Amino acid sequence: MKKILNNPDNFVTEMLDGVIKAHPDNLNYIGTDIHCIVRADAPVSGKVALATGGGSGHLPLFIGYVGKGMLDGCAVGDIFASPNAEQMLEVTRKINSTKGVVYIYGNYGGDVMNFDMAAELAEMEGIKVKTVLVADDVASAPASNAKQRRGIAGMIFAFKIAGAKAAKGGSLDEVVSVTEKALNNIRSIGVALSPCTVPRIGKPTFSIGSDEMEIGMGLHGERGISREKLQSADAVTTKMINTVLDELKPKTGDTLAVMINGLGATPTEELYIVYRKVHDLLTQNLLKIHRVYAGEYATSMEMSGFSITLFKVDDEMKILLDEPANTPFFKQF
Amino acid sequence: MKKILNNPDNFVTEMLDGVIKAHPDNLNYIGTDIHCIVRADAPVSGKVALATGGGSGHLPLFIGYVGKGMLDGCAVGDIFASPNAEQMLEVTRKINSTKGVVYIYGNYGGDVMNFDMAAELAEMEGIKVKTVLVADDVASAPASNAKQRRGIAGMIFAFKIAGAKAAKGGSLDEVVSVTEKALNNIRSIGVALSPCTVPRIGKPTFSIGSDEMEIGMGLHGERGISREKLQSADAVTTKMINTVLDELKPKTGDTLAVMINGLGATPTEELYIVYRKVHDLLTQNLLKIHRVYAGEYATSMEMSGFSITLFKVDDEMKILLDEPANTPFFKQF
Repeated sequence: MKKILNNPDNFVTEMLDGVIKAHPDNLNYIGTDIHCIVRADAPVSGKVALATGGGSGHLPLFIGYVGKGMLDGCAVGDIFASPNAEQMLEVTRKINSTKGVVYIYGNYGGDVMNFDMAAELAEMEGIKVKTVLVADDVASAPASNAKQRRGIAGMIFAFKIAGAKAAKGGSLDEVVSVTEKALNNIRSIGVALSPCTVPRIGKPTFSIGSDEMEIGMGLHGERGISREKLQSADAVTTKMINTVLDELKPKTGDTLAVMINGLGATPTEELYIVYRKVHDLLTQNLLKIHRVYAGEYATSMEMSGFSITLFKVDDEMKILLDEPANTPFFKQF
Repeated sequence: MKKILNNPDNFVTEMLDGVIKAHPDNLNYIGTDIHCIVRADAPVSGKVALATGGGSGHLPLFIGYVGKGMLDGCAVGDIFASPNAEQMLEVTRKINSTKGVVYIYGNYGGDVMNFDMAAELAEMEGIKVKTVLVADDVASAPASNAKQRRGIAGMIFAFKIAGAKAAKGGSLDEVVSVTEKALNNIRSIGVALSPCTVPRIGKPTFSIGSDEMEIGMGLHGERGISREKLQSADAVTTKMINTVLDELKPKTGDTLAVMINGLGATPTEELYIVYRKVHDLLTQNLLKIHRVYAGEYATSMEMSGFSITLFKVDDEMKILLDEPANTPFFKQF
C-alpha cells in the first residue's frame, strides 16, 4: 500500500479536518463529531434543506457539494461505510429551518437503513423529512429491477437540480418532485481498470488482469456486468453510451447534459478522449448537448476508470442546471 | 500500459478535440492547428494578452487556464514536448489586441527556445511581447542558482495574478511587474510516489521501489533531491514545508496562499491529509492563510504524488488573487 497517510485509523478524520480547515468560509462541523458537516451559514432560513451522506473515499462526494446552490449538509462514515443514524440526525437538526429536509443519497443498504432511521427520529422531533434515492447505475441491475440499482455520479446532477430548486424557494414537495423528475432522466454506467486500497485493510479491493477492464463495476468494487479485454477508448465509450441511450431513449432533437467522471487515478486527458467520442456519438444521433462536466466528481480513491452520465434535460431542467452554485468542489456562475 | 486511448499517436489531438468540444463557449483553436488554443472571444480589445504553453500531459495545465480572468491563449506540444515557435506565434497573433502580449511559462529548455523565437518573430510583425519565466521548484536547483529552476504548480498563481491585473486594465509593464513580484514570493516543492507512462512510449518514465518516494521529482520525471523510504504524510509534509519556508522566510503575521497539487493519481483525500498538516504548521508559525487550493492543478498524467506551493501575499496580491476567474478548470467568484 503506497499512500500518503499517517495512522490508517485516522485517515477519514484527518481528511475531514483538512477539508474543513481548507474551506472555513464554506463548511463547518457539528458539535464534537467531524463526520457531521454543514454549510457554515446553516440553517439557511426559509429554504428547504438538503442533506446527503454515505461512506468516505469518494471525494469530492459528499462533502464537496455542501454549499450555496447545492447541499446544506452531509454525514459521512468510514471508508466505504455508512454514517450512523445519529450522525445523520444531527445534520438534519442543524440544517432544518422551517420548510423541512430532503435526503438525497445513493441506494446502498447501509445508507438506506441509517437514513430511514434518522428520518423517523427527526419526524418524532417535528422535522419533516422526505427522501429521494439515487439509483442511476444501469449496470447494477436490469431495467426491470431498476429500484435495486446503485447510485453513482448521476447523484451530482440530482444535488444540482434539488439545490437550485430549493435556492429558488421551492417547497418540500416541489424539491422532491423536481429531483425525482431529474433522476427519471439520468442514467450512468462505469468501467474500472484497476482497484483502490482501503487504508485500514491495506490490500486492493479486487484483482483484475493487466489487460482487463470491468464494465459496470461499482464505486466500492461491486461486481459489474462484464469483464473484458481492454479495448480502445472509442470502442468502450460506444458500448457504454449505447447502453445508456437504450434506456434513456432520447428522441431526435432532445438535449442532454453529460458528465464524464474519473474514478480517481485516470488522467484528465483520457476523460477528454472519452468525451470526444461521446460528443461525436450524440451529435451523430442528432442529439443536442447542453452542458459538459468532465473531471473527478465521484471517485473511489485511486481506482482507475471512469463513468459516463447522461441527463436528458427539458427547459425546466436546463434552467435549474444553469443556476449558479458555489461549494468547495463545484463552482458555476 | 493500461490506458483509455485509441491510437497513441492521436492521444494529444483527440484530447484537445475533446476539451474544445466540451467547452465551446470558452475555447477555440486557430485555423487548422488544434495545438493552438485561444479564448473563444479573442482578441479581447484593450487588454494586455497573456499566453502560455508547454508539453501536453499536464491537464489542467495549460489549456484549462485559458479564459476570463486568466489567460488568452496557449500553444501545446506533444506529451512532455514543447510546441514549436510557429504555433506560439499563431497564438500570439490571434490574442494580441493593442497593448501587447506577455508569455508566462515554465523554465524548460525547449519551451524557452521556441517561445523566445516566437517573441522575436512577433516583434518583427509589430507585436510587443514580454516574457516572465516561472521557476518556482526549489528542489530543481539551489537558491544560489535559482534561475535554473524548473516551473511547476506555482505557475497557476502567476497566471491568476497576471490575469487579474490584465483584466483590470494594467499596462504591459504593469502586468509583467506584478507577475514578477508574485513569483518572487512563490515557492514549490513536489514528491513523487509512482511514475506515469507516455502513451507513445508505452513504459513508465522511471522506476521506483514500492516503499520509496522521491522528493523534488519534476513533472516529467526529472531527478529530485532525494529518494527515501516512504514516510508518514505528516513527516513528508513537514520536510517539504520547512524547505519552502526556509526560502520564503515569512515573518510572524505574514499571510500565505497555499496550493496542494495532486500529480494525477493521488486521491483527493490524501491531498487534504497533507493540507491539514500544512495548516497546522503554518498557524503554529503564526502565519495567516488567505486562500487554499487543493486538487489537481498541474499533473503528470497518472503519476502519483503531490506538490506544495506557498505564495506570500501582501494586500496587492490578495486583491488580485481574489478577483473572479472563469476558465474550463478554474472558477472563482
